[in-house]
Amino acid sequence: MSDLRPPEHQVAGHRASASKLGPLVDGSGLFYKPLQAGDRGQHELAFYEAFSAHAAIPPRIRDTFFPRFHGTRLLPSEAHPGEPHPHLVLDDLLAGFEAPSVVDIKIGAITWPPSSPEPYVAKCLAKDRGTTSVLLGFRVSGVRVLGPEGAVWRPERPELKALDTAGVRRMLRRYVSSVSGEGADCALAAAVYGGEGGVLSQLRELKAWFEQQTLFHFYSASILLCYDANAMSATGVGGGVRVKLVDFAHVAEGDGVIDHNFLGGLYSLIKFISDIVPETPETPPLGP
Amino acid sequence: MSDLRPPEHQVAGHRASASKLGPLVDGSGLFYKPLQAGDRGQHELAFYEAFSAHAAIPPRIRDTFFPRFHGTRLLPSEAHPGEPHPHLVLDDLLAGFEAPSVVDIKIGAITWPPSSPEPYVAKCLAKDRGTTSVLLGFRVSGVRVLGPEGAVWRPERPELKALDTAGVRRMLRRYVSSVSGEGADCALAAAVYGGEGGVLSQLRELKAWFEQQTLFHFYSASILLCYDANAMSATGVGGGVRVKLVDFAHVAEGDGVIDHNFLGGLYSLIKFISDIVPETPETPPLGP
Repeated sequence: MSDLRPPEHQVAGHRASASKLGPLVDGSGLFYKPLQAGDRGQHELAFYEAFSAHAAIPPRIRDTFFPRFHGTRLLPSEAHPGEPHPHLVLDDLLAGFEAPSVVDIKIGAITWPPSSPEPYVAKCLAKDRGTTSVLLGFRVSGVRVLGPEGAVWRPERPELKALDTAGVRRMLRRYVSSVSGEGADCALAAAVYGGEGGVLSQLRELKAWFEQQTLFHFYSASILLCYDANAMSATGVGGGVRVKLVDFAHVAEGDGVIDHNFLGGLYSLIKFISDIVPETPETPPLGP
Repeated sequence: MSDLRPPEHQVAGHRASASKLGPLVDGSGLFYKPLQAGDRGQHELAFYEAFSAHAAIPPRIRDTFFPRFHGTRLLPSEAHPGEPHPHLVLDDLLAGFEAPSVVDIKIGAITWPPSSPEPYVAKCLAKDRGTTSVLLGFRVSGVRVLGPEGAVWRPERPELKALDTAGVRRMLRRYVSSVSGEGADCALAAAVYGGEGGVLSQLRELKAWFEQQTLFHFYSASILLCYDANAMSATGVGGGVRVKLVDFAHVAEGDGVIDHNFLGGLYSLIKFISDIVPETPETPPLGP
C-alpha cells in the first residue's frame, strides 16, 4: 500500500494529484481506478461484477481482452483527507513493461447509450462530430510512445481532438515508428501490428467474438494497444503486444442484439491498421 | 410509354397521384423514379452515374445488389401539366413477380452524412432515436406481403415507426409466414432466408464486399428484400429471392474508409434473420 503512485504511462483520463483523484498503481501489478461520481462509477462497477461472473463470456476472451477485476478498495484521498474513496482494483495493463508504448482508441461512431437523456446525447454528439468518431467509427484519445533511449512522444489533447483522417493515419504510423525524429519509419509495424500475436491478429479474434456476442453494448469504451518498446526492439516479433478493452461506465445491456456500433468501428480500425502493415493472409492457403 | 402507371407493390416513399409525383413502372421491366427536389435528386443521379461507371466495383456486386441504371428521362407530370419532370430510369426490382412480398430496411444507426448541417442532423437523429435505428443499426421502413390467395398484409407507417426490438423480430417473421392469420408460422423462412441464393447467403456476400470497399458510404440507403410468394410456394427453395440496395440521395464519398455504419447495421440484420432460420453452416465442414 505504501507504494501507491500515479501510473507513469497513463494516456487518457484524469491524473491523480494533491487536489484531484486519479488512478494509482502499486508496483505489484494492480491498478486502482477511482470510482467515478454518481451513476457512472456505480455503472462501471456493476459492469465489472456482471462481466466477471458471466458464464457466457468465453474465458479466453475475458483473459485476453479485458483487465481482470479484483473487487473494490477504499483508499485515502489526498484531495479530501479523512474521506477515503472507493477504487476499482484491476490488473495494471502495463505491468512488466520497461518502455510501454500505448495508444487509446475510443471505439464507435456513437458514444452515448441509446437510453441517454437529450443533453448528454447533444454533448457527446458534438464531440463525436468534432473528432473522427462519426466519420471513422473511432477516435484516437491518447498516445504515449516511449523509445528505447527513453525519448517520449506524447501529443497533447487538443492535438488529438483536432486529428482528421490523415492525422489518424499518421498517428497510427508514428505509434510503430522510432521516435527520434518527426518522420514515421514504421520500423516496428510488422512486429507490433503484424504476425502471430500482433495487434491485427488480436483485433480479428476480438472481432470474431463481437460478430456473435449480444450480451453487452460497449458505448464509449476504448481499445488500448500496448507494447514494450524495449522488449520489441530486443526480441522482434511478439514483444508483449497487448490489446485490451477499458472504460465501461457507459456499457448497456445487449438484449440479444449485436453491438453493431462497436463492431463497425472495430472493422474500420482493422482496415486502418492493415493499410499500414503488409498483410499476412488470415488463413494459411491449403497446401501443398 | 402509354403503359406508365404507379407500381402496385411499392412499400416506402411517396406514391404517384394526380397531385403528387411518385415512381412509375412501364410493365417492360423499367422503374421511373422522379428526381427529388434540390440537391437530393442531383446527388442521387450523380451517385448512379459514378457507381455505374466505376471500374473498382465488381460487376457481380453491381449486377446482384443494385438496380441497373438506364439514364434519365423527362416524363409529363399530371401534377404540373406542361412541366415535364426528370426521372431516374432504373430496373424494376419486382419485374416478373406475380405476388411480390417486399420489406424495405433502412440500414445504419446514423442516417445523416457526417458533413450534414446541424438542423438536418437533429431531424434525422430524432427519427433514428425514435425508431430502432440507433438501437439495432437498422429500421423496417416498409413491408408488403402478398399471399398466394391474393391476401395482402401491409402495415401502415405509424405502426412501423412504433416498432421496438420485439416488433422488428415479429415483422421479420411475418414476412416469411402465411398471411391468412395473425400468427407467424415462418412457413417460408427456410426457403426465403436460408439455403443457397436465399437472403442470408446474399447478405453475407454483400457483407464481404462491405468489409473491403472504401469507395462509398451509404447513409440512409435501404436494403430491399423481395420474393415472389407464388413462385416460392410453387417451387420451394430459390423462388426468386432478390436482395437490393436502393435510395442513394445521401451517399457520401468513402475516401479510403470503410462504411462502418452500414456494415454494423448489416451485421445486426444478418443476426436477426439468422435467429429466425435454423443456420446452414457458412462453409461446409471438411469431410469425410
